[in-house]
Amino acid sequence: MKVELISVGTEILLGNIVNTNAAYLSEKCAGLGLSCYFQTVVGDNEERLTQALETAVGRSDIVILSGGLGPTEDDLTKETAAKVCGRPLYLHEPSREAIGNYFAGRGIEPTDNNWKQAMLPEGAIVLENHNGTAPGAIIETESARVILLPGPPNELYPMFEESVAPYLASLNSQVICSTTVKVCGVGESKAETMVKDLIDTQTNPTIATYAKTGEVHIRVTAGAEDKKCAGKLIKPVVKELKARFGNHVYTTDESVTLEKSVADLLLANDLTITCAESCTGGLLSARLVNVPGISEVYKFGMVTYSNKAKRRFLGVKKSTLQKHGAVSEKTAEEMAKGAALESKADVAVAITGIAGPEGGTPEKPVGLVYIACFVKGKTTVKKCQFSGNRGKIREAAVSSALTLTRSCVLEYFSKVTFGKKES
Amino acid sequence: MKVELISVGTEILLGNIVNTNAAYLSEKCAGLGLSCYFQTVVGDNEERLTQALETAVGRSDIVILSGGLGPTEDDLTKETAAKVCGRPLYLHEPSREAIGNYFAGRGIEPTDNNWKQAMLPEGAIVLENHNGTAPGAIIETESARVILLPGPPNELYPMFEESVAPYLASLNSQVICSTTVKVCGVGESKAETMVKDLIDTQTNPTIATYAKTGEVHIRVTAGAEDKKCAGKLIKPVVKELKARFGNHVYTTDESVTLEKSVADLLLANDLTITCAESCTGGLLSARLVNVPGISEVYKFGMVTYSNKAKRRFLGVKKSTLQKHGAVSEKTAEEMAKGAALESKADVAVAITGIAGPEGGTPEKPVGLVYIACFVKGKTTVKKCQFSGNRGKIREAAVSSALTLTRSCVLEYFSKVTFGKKES
Repeated sequence: MKVELISVGTEILLGNIVNTNAAYLSEKCAGLGLSCYFQTVVGDNEERLTQALETAVGRSDIVILSGGLGPTEDDLTKETAAKVCGRPLYLHEPSREAIGNYFAGRGIEPTDNNWKQAMLPEGAIVLENHNGTAPGAIIETESARVILLPGPPNELYPMFEESVAPYLASLNSQVICSTTVKVCGVGESKAETMVKDLIDTQTNPTIATYAKTGEVHIRVTAGAEDKKCAGKLIKPVVKELKARFGNHVYTTDESVTLEKSVADLLLANDLTITCAESCTGGLLSARLVNVPGISEVYKFGMVTYSNKAKRRFLGVKKSTLQKHGAVSEKTAEEMAKGAALESKADVAVAITGIAGPEGGTPEKPVGLVYIACFVKGKTTVKKCQFSGNRGKIREAAVSSALTLTRSCVLEYFSKVTFGKKES
Repeated sequence: MKVELISVGTEILLGNIVNTNAAYLSEKCAGLGLSCYFQTVVGDNEERLTQALETAVGRSDIVILSGGLGPTEDDLTKETAAKVCGRPLYLHEPSREAIGNYFAGRGIEPTDNNWKQAMLPEGAIVLENHNGTAPGAIIETESARVILLPGPPNELYPMFEESVAPYLASLNSQVICSTTVKVCGVGESKAETMVKDLIDTQTNPTIATYAKTGEVHIRVTAGAEDKKCAGKLIKPVVKELKARFGNHVYTTDESVTLEKSVADLLLANDLTITCAESCTGGLLSARLVNVPGISEVYKFGMVTYSNKAKRRFLGVKKSTLQKHGAVSEKTAEEMAKGAALESKADVAVAITGIAGPEGGTPEKPVGLVYIACFVKGKTTVKKCQFSGNRGKIREAAVSSALTLTRSCVLEYFSKVTFGKKES
């Protein structure tokens, strides 16, 4: 089945916001085995929205509109869709009640405009909104199914997951399932080369790689008559990918991030962690603290940006800084050791580098970063050369630090060299 | 003049990448006074691209296509545009030479495919690519101007700046200029209310508000015969906005971020800063370290996530934690004071809160955050209640901490109450 997206919002046409909803919806539809051939963005304008919607209904089986369900006069997605589909609006009592409750719970008086959101196209399937006042709707016409979703991502995402995804899945005689194999410590092009033969020869399941900062995600998607059969198709491919990438695979669970996998690994081995950061300025700590419940393993971290701070709080030797410089293997090593000593943590990760745009030299160019990881007495230092702007370099350094931490902890416990199974 | 964007790329339709090019081009076009009414995304498919391009040429004056200029068989934007515009492709000698030089400079042998990129539509204006091998092109037809740009942002952005922006500006008899007034410490709806009368009555310049995390940006845009005249139209409006928002205006320079304005303020007053963070886990330090050259004012920061760390490294009293809890005004205050004492910085900012999803109680719900700012002996504490998920709460806390720091430093030096001019 062909699906088409129409995002409604003048703020997208003005470039004020990036159309992340379209990327989200496209990815979800692809995961459900639906082919998306067109994405369109139109402003809050009845004539142009009508034109876009009529075109879409004429060439696609499913049209998903997002945005323009708000209470103001500018919001006219529902009104326009109702007209194009020939379904007049009526007051949907449960939605009116839900809107009333929403405002009552917040102690706010709704304005007259707000009740407009309870008006829905006749015969439409109404989609409850648990995170806002705009209900969604599915209008089933002879030529297409038109789905109306609110624009704010914190309303759209849950509504899609709860109501739209099951609805779309039910239209397909096939069940589409996918598993994502998340890989760290392998570059994008190397990862692609390592799976190229699989991508070229497989048709069901299909295999696709997605490059993320410091990571590659490999998605295996299968269509089958039921979940169990799809799972059977996926399983051997995931097994093959795990064999090829070895310990570089940090999870096959969609919801697990790299920082979460590191946190879980520390938790499972009863280890605490500390960070001593220079150029990343707290980003590594902040990423670990992204993980809810991190307090069991993360207690304390330091941002030692100046040389003085590196000496005073981490005990980096004056002679080290003079001889090797702040961005050096030796300084990184002393930072990690000092952080472990100071915080009494089992694992200490240190980052020191040149994030730019200034400060680079021919010997130590912008993007040069040393990462040290101390695990119960043993310190490993990795030299990295990243490219991009200040922000990109710092992000890449943090991802590499998480990858190094994971490999050092794994090595400490298993004495298995990280990535050994790869060859 | 009406402009329309067509982004070509199956990876956008699959949701693998977010369409940031469209946001970039839309914002640039709006800045040039061009109205963008439609954005379309199509895959690398001749039939559907033809359909999208014919529709666009039929209703818009300028059509900007991005992507699909690569050397592979999948790349067919140029071929399709040439067909739709009735301009056969020919070998453009200077482009062939540039491609040859590009590869020679990198010591790589070009493949046969690469020469395809030197084929250009007859009569087109050729746009040089200084960052890749795909030249861009402008095809001027009777009905519309069709502009072809490469997809990679590091090629598209400079080509737009260098060649397309001056071309589009030359089509307009008017010059379009804008100034952004950046405001912190005022909520979105309050800011909108404060400028509603201006928005409703002004036509040139126009005024638009953009909500950012913890900030509101107000863009004033004027069209005039030349830059000087546009500036004259903008100036009184910016003055009026400054009068209304007082010290809440932190810059009118597009390139200055909130953290940069704080860094500049500290630098100008010869003050150093430190951060002691709990729930934000290093994000505040990381945002300050975003600013190149921050080392003059930022030397050291701490992430004291556990109560033990708060006691040991910041000297927060055991009795304070027992009586008031880690998330309290008193703890925030002691954290800031302790951080200042430990680091010897002039300014110390502390954040302690409940970022969720767990840990909330009826008395201290998720989103409750205390921010303390110490400036040379005087400590100010602010209680905040944020909403959203863990990430949103932490981001909002960091923005509020920057805003509080700014206001406390301003107050210290001027003894002017922050935002006094507002009433």
